[in-house]
Amino acid sequence: MDKQFTILVNCTDETGLIYRITRILFENGLNIVKNGEFVDQESDHFFMRTEAEGTTNESALTEALTAILPANSKVEVITGKKKKLVILATKENHCLGDLLIRNHFNEWNAEITAVISNHDLLRDFTERFDVPFHHVPADNCSREEHEQLLTEIINRYAPDYIVLARYMRILTPGFAQQYRGKVINIHHSFLPAFIGARPYRQAFNRGVKIIGATAHFVTDQLDEGPIICQNVISIDHSHSAPDMARAGRGIEKMVLAQALKLVLEDRVMINGNKTVIF
Amino acid sequence: MDKQFTILVNCTDETGLIYRITRILFENGLNIVKNGEFVDQESDHFFMRTEAEGTTNESALTEALTAILPANSKVEVITGKKKKLVILATKENHCLGDLLIRNHFNEWNAEITAVISNHDLLRDFTERFDVPFHHVPADNCSREEHEQLLTEIINRYAPDYIVLARYMRILTPGFAQQYRGKVINIHHSFLPAFIGARPYRQAFNRGVKIIGATAHFVTDQLDEGPIICQNVISIDHSHSAPDMARAGRGIEKMVLAQALKLVLEDRVMINGNKTVIF
Amino acid sequence: MDKQFTILVNCTDETGLIYRITRILFENGLNIVKNGEFVDQESDHFFMRTEAEGTTNESALTEALTAILPANSKVEVITGKKKKLVILATKENHCLGDLLIRNHFNEWNAEITAVISNHDLLRDFTERFDVPFHHVPADNCSREEHEQLLTEIINRYAPDYIVLARYMRILTPGFAQQYRGKVINIHHSFLPAFIGARPYRQAFNRGVKIIGATAHFVTDQLDEGPIICQNVISIDHSHSAPDMARAGRGIEKMVLAQALKLVLEDRVMINGNKTVIF
Amino acid sequence: MDKQFTILVNCTDETGLIYRITRILFENGLNIVKNGEFVDQESDHFFMRTEAEGTTNESALTEALTAILPANSKVEVITGKKKKLVILATKENHCLGDLLIRNHFNEWNAEITAVISNHDLLRDFTERFDVPFHHVPADNCSREEHEQLLTEIINRYAPDYIVLARYMRILTPGFAQQYRGKVINIHHSFLPAFIGARPYRQAFNRGVKIIGATAHFVTDQLDEGPIICQNVISIDHSHSAPDMARAGRGIEKMVLAQALKLVLEDRVMINGNKTVIF
Repeated sequence: MDKQFTILVNCTDETGLIYRITRILFENGLNIVKNGEFVDQESDHFFMRTEAEGTTNESALTEALTAILPANSKVEVITGKKKKLVILATKENHCLGDLLIRNHFNEWNAEITAVISNHDLLRDFTERFDVPFHHVPADNCSREEHEQLLTEIINRYAPDYIVLARYMRILTPGFAQQYRGKVINIHHSFLPAFIGARPYRQAFNRGVKIIGATAHFVTDQLDEGPIICQNVISIDHSHSAPDMARAGRGIEKMVLAQALKLVLEDRVMINGNKTVIF
Repeated sequence: MDKQFTILVNCTDETGLIYRITRILFENGLNIVKNGEFVDQESDHFFMRTEAEGTTNESALTEALTAILPANSKVEVITGKKKKLVILATKENHCLGDLLIRNHFNEWNAEITAVISNHDLLRDFTERFDVPFHHVPADNCSREEHEQLLTEIINRYAPDYIVLARYMRILTPGFAQQYRGKVINIHHSFLPAFIGARPYRQAFNRGVKIIGATAHFVTDQLDEGPIICQNVISIDHSHSAPDMARAGRGIEKMVLAQALKLVLEDRVMINGNKTVIF
Repeated sequence: MDKQFTILVNCTDETGLIYRITRILFENGLNIVKNGEFVDQESDHFFMRTEAEGTTNESALTEALTAILPANSKVEVITGKKKKLVILATKENHCLGDLLIRNHFNEWNAEITAVISNHDLLRDFTERFDVPFHHVPADNCSREEHEQLLTEIINRYAPDYIVLARYMRILTPGFAQQYRGKVINIHHSFLPAFIGARPYRQAFNRGVKIIGATAHFVTDQLDEGPIICQNVISIDHSHSAPDMARAGRGIEKMVLAQALKLVLEDRVMINGNKTVIF
Repeated sequence: MDKQFTILVNCTDETGLIYRITRILFENGLNIVKNGEFVDQESDHFFMRTEAEGTTNESALTEALTAILPANSKVEVITGKKKKLVILATKENHCLGDLLIRNHFNEWNAEITAVISNHDLLRDFTERFDVPFHHVPADNCSREEHEQLLTEIINRYAPDYIVLARYMRILTPGFAQQYRGKVINIHHSFLPAFIGARPYRQAFNRGVKIIGATAHFVTDQLDEGPIICQNVISIDHSHSAPDMARAGRGIEKMVLAQALKLVLEDRVMINGNKTVIF
């Protein structure tokens, strides 16, 4: 019976790459369902994502592809294993709630295995969906000690991705490096505008006419990681800073959900400090 | 020296098409710069657009591609010849003005060779840009006689595309069939809402909160042809029908220009009553 | 202590209305916090919404305002009583889920008192939020009999508004008339495009480049009632009809939540088949 | 015969202001056509804009209004005098072209009296529309000397507003102060993101998924003045910096035209470093 494969290739650009790759797929009896390629002209780098179906063996395919590609190429052959998520939250419920409902109704090929928070506020809500909730207070401990506690719980669940659903504490570079390319944050502004704390207050003070939200991978630079999705809404002079925060919540949860869908469908490839989205 | 090619392929779907096509390109020494494919699952049809560079011969390449594709495939190998446009307008200046400025500053690999109108109102404006203007009054003649006069002038210029820049007369099915896939219209609503006359008045009467514009190919069914681009803006209860018309003009000219850019860059393939945009 | 008032006035237009109304407010010691007016030039009708604070008596204020306004004026003086909602749903969880979370965290000055469905599918989910769920099957009964059963349950809760959160049955004109101006529906297209059943399938067949959602009051004409909110998202040729449906869910729940927020804050006045939104 | 008035009031907030103002309008026989008010809660400041029609005398009305308002109130009574504009441009034609066409067809109650540029490139284009063009080279002179030359020409035309239509030189604080509240700039990013030079290059480097444009009043702080309008478009990883610049031009000219329309209709009131838009 046919299996679904997603094949991700990432290598230095050369003439004939698509030909060589599709030849291997053809020789392995795979039918291409969807295909996307991108060449980054500045870095001379080639990215390709293919959805295919057939009966081939993953490791053989990976080996065959690696053999015909330039040295240092990165090849991933992904089949439909359910991905595991851990969510970090603080006090705001809108992003967490949206994710828990999607999880409850199996909207994605993924499972929320735990919610962790530095406050105990969202426990009852989370447990209504039968998802384990861990309260890890940040009081009376250093940032590093707190992250050590987080890490222990996170690693217990061995998640594919960690989602910061309005988690309001700054993470250390060490934390980001440990989970490189696996931590997704929703920032409540259209980055790079209003980096850092209280972006709606900053937006109010600046008198902007649009506000937005940005989902991005977390790196060791605060709010500087590769952007996955952004969206905005119009506001006007009659919006107070709390009005903006309220209006922005709808965009935040929508942008986070879009970004997560793309990531879970293996449509996002990291290209330095940017993303390629297929 | 390297030439730029755009290669469009359109055929029944089969396993191995991308492999076969890219093999031919590779064997002809072409480097792929950009590639896009799409399979219409409902009609089982394959579409591919490739930008490539190299020194090959167009007719040989077309022949080589046709040879390895299913019967009835359509292959186009396009090089950078400047395309010729004829614009039809009536009284409104915003879409025409936008196109004339882009033409004046050579924004596109295309040339507006003539403007034709059923009124003489836009003559002075058009001629300021050194573009020939033809007034073809529609009074005292049948719709068929009028189109016969239009056709004679249009054919004199042998245009690649005919652009209806708020041309306010309904064209006969005969006209549309004569220039099948070559006539682009901007309709001042987000089709299929508000087909036909006075869409802003219709929008006002219905009390919608968004209005829009649609650029589409003209077929023998009024406002029913393949859609290329659409966009919308928000309005509210304080907009009168003329306010909406004014606000809509900005979207109309933007959508028409976007559609034309896509068409002139050979990014639009017609798929029955739809478009595939690469 | 100061109370908050929202004052809605709706009457034939005349010179001096704002002056007369604000004089009454001033004489009653009210401070205007926010004010909006609109004159419908076509119907010569005046609409005004005022947020004010002070210590006056509602019925005295209503009487004083009515006394200085044209005959047949409509005056409402609203204080902050919590509004009651009944939700009707079928099988889709996204709009219902979004509303239940907002209700759970008291986001609005309103309470969801019950959920009613023609299927039993959403019972467990609804009851996790401690909201009563009523299953009213539509099998083996006429449309009128089914609505009779619905009506009995609805009336038990005496709701201020009935929200159709992707309720997939067509309501009779009789039902709409019974709850005139109190029933809010989310339609999964940018009306008036794609009225009726399966709008995403209609959108797919037409090949549109944008899809949308519309929140509107329900009248006896299907999908023809006063529009409250609309929004759209871009799609492309690669979206199947189910892809569109999935993408559209985010917009549907956002538009419904926006419309409900406006209605619950008494910002929406019905003007024939349109709305005035303050 | 009735005249049209626009009345702008700007003062410290107090109870009863709308009542007092509308009483004066009523006593002067004015019919209010449109009305908007806003109270800035942070600065405790009241803004009001009224469109009215009647036969009153402007200076008498201004005096009557001033008499009933708090000290230091600002009252403007504006009638329909055509406003005068001077445009500053450099090499880019899209914003200038859009404005010249709107001017040519009398779209606004305003007249472009001159175009000034630090290059001679746009002379022929400007003169095709019978608008005077002044070339003021910036070579071989200091920034202050150059602005002195600009100022002499500008003052000759006594403009109501100076529009920077992609004028690519930084103006000194002295210039901004001289024309306080009269200089409107279009910046090619969604401010405050990408302040300063080459914003599309900055956007490309950051890997954002949306780009935008901002129209704002010029103050002595670069790109920091009160924002009038902003808008954005979506882009993706396939856009090079020049692609972004091309895509952004459509938004730039649309945002500048919207801002100018608002300003010319006296709908924009400056509130510190923000705007109130009626």
